[in-house]
Amino acid sequence: MADEVKLLGVVGSPFVCRVQIALKFKGIEYKFVQENLANKSDQLLKYNPVYKKVPVFVHNEKPISESLVILEYIDEVWKNNPIFPSDPYHRALARFWSKFIDDKIVTPSFKSVFSVDEKEREKSIAETTEALEILENELKDKFFGGQEFGYVDIAAVYIAFWIPLFQDIIGMKLFTADNFQKLHKWSQEFLNHPTVKEIMPPRDPLFSFFKGVHDNLHSSSK
Amino acid sequence: MADEVKLLGVVGSPFVCRVQIALKFKGIEYKFVQENLANKSDQLLKYNPVYKKVPVFVHNEKPISESLVILEYIDEVWKNNPIFPSDPYHRALARFWSKFIDDKIVTPSFKSVFSVDEKEREKSIAETTEALEILENELKDKFFGGQEFGYVDIAAVYIAFWIPLFQDIIGMKLFTADNFQKLHKWSQEFLNHPTVKEIMPPRDPLFSFFKGVHDNLHSSSK
Repeated sequence: MADEVKLLGVVGSPFVCRVQIALKFKGIEYKFVQENLANKSDQLLKYNPVYKKVPVFVHNEKPISESLVILEYIDEVWKNNPIFPSDPYHRALARFWSKFIDDKIVTPSFKSVFSVDEKEREKSIAETTEALEILENELKDKFFGGQEFGYVDIAAVYIAFWIPLFQDIIGMKLFTADNFQKLHKWSQEFLNHPTVKEIMPPRDPLFSFFKGVHDNLHSSSK
Repeated sequence: MADEVKLLGVVGSPFVCRVQIALKFKGIEYKFVQENLANKSDQLLKYNPVYKKVPVFVHNEKPISESLVILEYIDEVWKNNPIFPSDPYHRALARFWSKFIDDKIVTPSFKSVFSVDEKEREKSIAETTEALEILENELKDKFFGGQEFGYVDIAAVYIAFWIPLFQDIIGMKLFTADNFQKLHKWSQEFLNHPTVKEIMPPRDPLFSFFKGVHDNLHSSSK
């Protein structure tokens, strides 16, 4: 039986983008199924009844949710172009830092843009900045795992693409070449990687979309 | 070189307990280093500078934090008595459910006991109940992975031991043999597993400790 590989997603989600980068990097053919989150498909509800969210990766009708879990699965099944280091200790560090990025950077930085509670927004900006400082110190090479592109870099796509987008929406210079020199350089290397370059969505429509969401939230909360 | 294995922990932490169960299950000899979280040791600050929390697992001076990450490392390095399924899809599901337990059960249920905000407490109780219902439906066999004890069971030690403890503190019957029949039966199987039985801390001192924390928080918030 030929492999049937599907990805349920939306354009503009950093979590979906992680999976797309891994699939592209490994040269895996797949069908992208565009979801409408305002009107979720029966397929999405069937494949991800717990969270009803994208991405959902479906391999021969077996669904997996949670982008970091999907990346591990893809790397275990398709062995070419590994995204995980082979050494167990470095694998553990890669898992640790990816979780750190989700817990300490993605979650608070999202709140720092979209929360309508001013105190929560300020607290989230401080938390994001502190976590970015920790990550800046962790970055020792061209990519997180060394000279080769890997799991932590893919998890960090949010920092390279979405943080600059979001800070332009709220008109704030949180993440720049001046205050996060190493991370900023990494983000340029990462976005210019041939695999990533091909996958990233166009910036302008996403900027308009997220700006609309932001402006809507903030005007209706007044 | 002989392996040097250390675990920095405190008695009564469900996260430390996860690591202890895995180590016991695999018969790994290690040194337990008791930490005092009110006065953190230099060793803890050195080994876990990011979170400054336990557990920290140290293998030949290489430290790893985050209990679920530690379990993966242990299973990759010590191959006997595997706690992960060998099939990549079942591995992905095990990772998915363990993350679900942390995000949707541990975090809200902790708030439902210790939060001093009444609205937040009520919301957290509802969230925990909903997540336990999802997990109840997921449980199809003696253990989460089938007839054999594994990763998800170990991650769920919090449900078997800490939830009953916490609900007695707040005098609430959230998790019982009546309302979560399958999960409750699982919790008894799990706590009676020879490995787990040997590891679980005595209940009474922990009850007193957590009740003290709870009463203190709630009296000082009034």
